[in-house]
Amino acid sequence: MDYEIFELGDIVLQRGATLRGAKLAYKTYGTLNADKSNVIVYPTWYSGQHHDNEWLIGPGMALDPAKYFIIVPNMLGNGLSSSPSNTPQPYDLSRFPNVTLYDNVTLQHRLVTQKFGIERIALVVGWSMGAQQTNQWGCLYPDMVRRIAPFCGSAKTAPHNIVFLEGVKAALTADAAWNGGWYTTPPTRGLRAVGRVYAGWGLSQPFYMQELWRELGFSSLEDFLVGYWEGFFLKKDANNLLAMLWSWQHGDISDNPVFKGDFKRALGAIKARAIVMPAERDLYFPAADNEWEVSHMPNAECRPIPGVWGHFAGGGSSPADTRFIDDALKELLATP
Amino acid sequence: MDYEIFELGDIVLQRGATLRGAKLAYKTYGTLNADKSNVIVYPTWYSGQHHDNEWLIGPGMALDPAKYFIIVPNMLGNGLSSSPSNTPQPYDLSRFPNVTLYDNVTLQHRLVTQKFGIERIALVVGWSMGAQQTNQWGCLYPDMVRRIAPFCGSAKTAPHNIVFLEGVKAALTADAAWNGGWYTTPPTRGLRAVGRVYAGWGLSQPFYMQELWRELGFSSLEDFLVGYWEGFFLKKDANNLLAMLWSWQHGDISDNPVFKGDFKRALGAIKARAIVMPAERDLYFPAADNEWEVSHMPNAECRPIPGVWGHFAGGGSSPADTRFIDDALKELLATP
Repeated sequence: MDYEIFELGDIVLQRGATLRGAKLAYKTYGTLNADKSNVIVYPTWYSGQHHDNEWLIGPGMALDPAKYFIIVPNMLGNGLSSSPSNTPQPYDLSRFPNVTLYDNVTLQHRLVTQKFGIERIALVVGWSMGAQQTNQWGCLYPDMVRRIAPFCGSAKTAPHNIVFLEGVKAALTADAAWNGGWYTTPPTRGLRAVGRVYAGWGLSQPFYMQELWRELGFSSLEDFLVGYWEGFFLKKDANNLLAMLWSWQHGDISDNPVFKGDFKRALGAIKARAIVMPAERDLYFPAADNEWEVSHMPNAECRPIPGVWGHFAGGGSSPADTRFIDDALKELLATP
Repeated sequence: MDYEIFELGDIVLQRGATLRGAKLAYKTYGTLNADKSNVIVYPTWYSGQHHDNEWLIGPGMALDPAKYFIIVPNMLGNGLSSSPSNTPQPYDLSRFPNVTLYDNVTLQHRLVTQKFGIERIALVVGWSMGAQQTNQWGCLYPDMVRRIAPFCGSAKTAPHNIVFLEGVKAALTADAAWNGGWYTTPPTRGLRAVGRVYAGWGLSQPFYMQELWRELGFSSLEDFLVGYWEGFFLKKDANNLLAMLWSWQHGDISDNPVFKGDFKRALGAIKARAIVMPAERDLYFPAADNEWEVSHMPNAECRPIPGVWGHFAGGGSSPADTRFIDDALKELLATP
């Protein structure tokens, strides 16, 4: 086990359930300095775990463990933090409660403050749902968070994004083996179907036209669909996927007791210096939505990632896009 | 029955099967004039039937039955022409053979020439897969087809489009009730899943952001997903959908004995005056692909349909888009 567990105790979730003995899995990189001024928080993405964030961490990179203390908290539902797959009865499997962005971030805040006694965060950064958590950090804790860099995400899940996820969910749950979540063996047909549905959304039209899956080591389009996409989701737990999907569909930084649904006010509360990076060709977090958000954030810039990798521009597989993001993070961290 | 059947006899399909007693269902609108110079051919789209094309036909419109003789041939697999659902054993259900664009168009050509003795066509026009058939008409019969107007389609199915369809297929076939095509009652869970997968692709991100489904008479996003999308696919036969999906995935106007896979040569053979109309926000037939195609067509113009309806700009539900298409058709038909 290459990560730590922060015991949350019994937590009352935003939608009302009490998750008893809840756990937040996390991993840290680097060393917390004496005045605790070198903290970076880097939440995970849909189905990702801390190790899936490591491509953006390393010597010479913006997220350099020699300089920064980087905390990667695992999102609830991702199989390491409390999830359908690891929660004891009676809140296991299909009974795992609905978890919001607000739940995730307030619990991460407990980790950061209670476990480490941190009062200021140099940067919160994340991809996709990690970007959504990043935005949530920004508006909930404006005096704590100095900078944010959400990439390929949004502050509020758009209706079309919700619809895309309905397709993912429908493909998974069309498999009778899913059995309303009460499966004993994985619904593999549904998981494979999720991979095929997702394949069209994760990358752009010209990515496929240019056969850039070759750069990822696949020998044909079908090899990419099976070897990458089906393989990716076969490793995931179906109930976990559905739990995180619910969190995603309900992503809204203003849907909480602090902002009471006032989205513009929540955006306006993000005082942190922000570089918001949509991917130019992202099919479900379109750049236009980020541009609108940034126009309501007091200290933010929208800086689209050029190219054809679509949502996966932020996934660490495209060296040019990784460089683009890393350069922006360096620039952001260099600002006072 | 509001349509006619053209008996094709025993046909040898491009991929080798012989479909015995094959049938081409069609409907005509208007009257063939004495010199047979007023012919328009208007093929159907994925799962559409002749009546689904009627929104673009009417008095005062470009496709005015008072002026033109409009032939709407039903695509093979659509449930009216020979299809998995209506073909006798042994080529029924899952055994229905693979049908290409080339098959469809050469059989339509037989209808037009053998049944009606037509030698010249004023216009071939169609939406989506209908546009693909339109392009196929243009390059196979350049001396016969004077004008073409393919909208929201392409001359060759792009890899990303193939991937999108893999998601549709996977969602349908994840339902065990599909049973490899040997179902006796419809795989309704899979058909509903297809609706939900398709929902994200058929319309654009801003369509959903602006809640334009309200203009279609739906009361909520979920009402649109159930009432429109699930309802739409529940009316379709699963094997028919899969048969047409195969045709679509293999759509390529050059994949036939005439052009032997030379796509540029096939495009170059389209002598017809062409107005090619992609929808600005189409997610699976992107405008960029049409622009490239048009650059290889000798007498063509690319004229994107503006707005946020995405692929459904060509479906007849958006009055402004319908007007745009109709205006272009009027202009095209007025050229010598």
